[in-house]
Amino acid sequence: MRIDVLTLFPGMFDGVFGASILGKAREKGLVELNTVNFRDFANNKHSTVDDYPYGGGGGMVLKAEPIFAAVEDLLERRRLACSEKQGEPGREPEASQDEGTGYAAGQPIGAESHARALPKAPRVILMCPQGEPFSQKKAEELSAEEHLVFICGHYEGYDERIREYLVTDELSIGDYVLTGGELPAMVVIDSVVRLLPGVLGNETSAVTDSFSTGLLEYPHYTRPVKFRDWEVPDILLSGHHSNIADWRRKQSILRTWRKRPELLESAGLTPKEKMWLESLRQEEANQDKQ
Amino acid sequence: MRIDVLTLFPGMFDGVFGASILGKAREKGLVELNTVNFRDFANNKHSTVDDYPYGGGGGMVLKAEPIFAAVEDLLERRRLACSEKQGEPGREPEASQDEGTGYAAGQPIGAESHARALPKAPRVILMCPQGEPFSQKKAEELSAEEHLVFICGHYEGYDERIREYLVTDELSIGDYVLTGGELPAMVVIDSVVRLLPGVLGNETSAVTDSFSTGLLEYPHYTRPVKFRDWEVPDILLSGHHSNIADWRRKQSILRTWRKRPELLESAGLTPKEKMWLESLRQEEANQDKQ
Repeated sequence: MRIDVLTLFPGMFDGVFGASILGKAREKGLVELNTVNFRDFANNKHSTVDDYPYGGGGGMVLKAEPIFAAVEDLLERRRLACSEKQGEPGREPEASQDEGTGYAAGQPIGAESHARALPKAPRVILMCPQGEPFSQKKAEELSAEEHLVFICGHYEGYDERIREYLVTDELSIGDYVLTGGELPAMVVIDSVVRLLPGVLGNETSAVTDSFSTGLLEYPHYTRPVKFRDWEVPDILLSGHHSNIADWRRKQSILRTWRKRPELLESAGLTPKEKMWLESLRQEEANQDKQ
Repeated sequence: MRIDVLTLFPGMFDGVFGASILGKAREKGLVELNTVNFRDFANNKHSTVDDYPYGGGGGMVLKAEPIFAAVEDLLERRRLACSEKQGEPGREPEASQDEGTGYAAGQPIGAESHARALPKAPRVILMCPQGEPFSQKKAEELSAEEHLVFICGHYEGYDERIREYLVTDELSIGDYVLTGGELPAMVVIDSVVRLLPGVLGNETSAVTDSFSTGLLEYPHYTRPVKFRDWEVPDILLSGHHSNIADWRRKQSILRTWRKRPELLESAGLTPKEKMWLESLRQEEANQDKQ
């Protein structure tokens, strides 16, 4: 997978793209991560990328031109790299020449590329508070793509024409205000890259998949058995696997009920589990009365 | 405000803590940002910070010891720095000596410090998928604190005793799976620091506050009036301020209705706006029938 990020602060990505899972995925050649400063595409003396909003009001608005230019430059360079590859011995160089320019200027970015030999048009993703709430399902969908382009604004609005004519997806990571789209883009990239085949080793994949059962995770304990005055629950030391599995499942249900009850509806509880939960509810209601 | 982050990947924070708003807030002395590698507090030959879970199962679990030790070391150093300050001319040095060790070992971290002269106990925040969903309201609450400590695990579980006896808050930034708590901590820190007095200039504060009206933002446009074939709506060029305000408000309502209808309930629409929205709903329903 190839990922390009358009940003005015490329340095923000260095530490994150170099470390841990993302760094390893890069080293293994499983993902190509690249930042583009779209200020380099500002077509004016002062490299201005923003301007006052039409109609007045506070704040500045990111101009359409530099962002369109930066994305189109990316795509053109990718197309050329792809054509060169096809010029290698044993390949037919005609394929790309006959079928036009792929997704060069004039063709909608979001449209399917007609030339089989050309790279598939990328998903162009705008990080913004107005976007679709990001979810694990969306991460899975994006992990099947060949090429993602992220556009990160910074405490400013975007010219609406970027949204209408360039972008294929608008995403928001949550209902809180941030200073820019850079951290949200990192969050989406992290969640997508860890799903690519070969990125996570077996040893790391199990614990993190907290949402796969639809419930919050049960409590974990490791050595020592007694830390200060606090001991590991006896059941976990019993060696009785089915009792442990039963305890963990109940702890997951209990924790979800206390912290995120709305998740229970789609968690697929068994009729027996529902009855158990109902008895807990009644017990608590009785205690409240007393 | 002082913020400490416990992590196994301190390098991930360099680019983010140095750039943009966070970098400027640091330069101005409005926030002190600090990372601690809790591997330095592993009390064993191989600097191990994790171990197998009691009761079996996949994945590894972060041990309680190094994380307790790292937080307590932070607090002890902060207490000493505070005592030294009180030793300066014109201050009473006895205050801190009489009233014990503040929040040193043995006293619950979350408890109020009894010694007025000692620093207030920090909020100790665990980033985890089981946490309370992070919100703008939580960002406002945290921005009133003096000291925040973030604990970031990495594709592993936490020993439950960390949660029970050290942590004051558990936060999740959204229902998607990430490789660690580092990016979530950066997200929370960014949203909190931008709320500190003096951090945002006036010019940047207006546009970003998308959630302050409870509605999604209206479309923005800036120069040129015509970009390729796409023009700015006439109304924004009219100079008629009340018409523009009316158009923008309706666009906000419309966009919220299409993309995030659940936000409309608490958005405080006027009776007239509700009627307008109802007429749109009926129009759409009629079109669907035909």
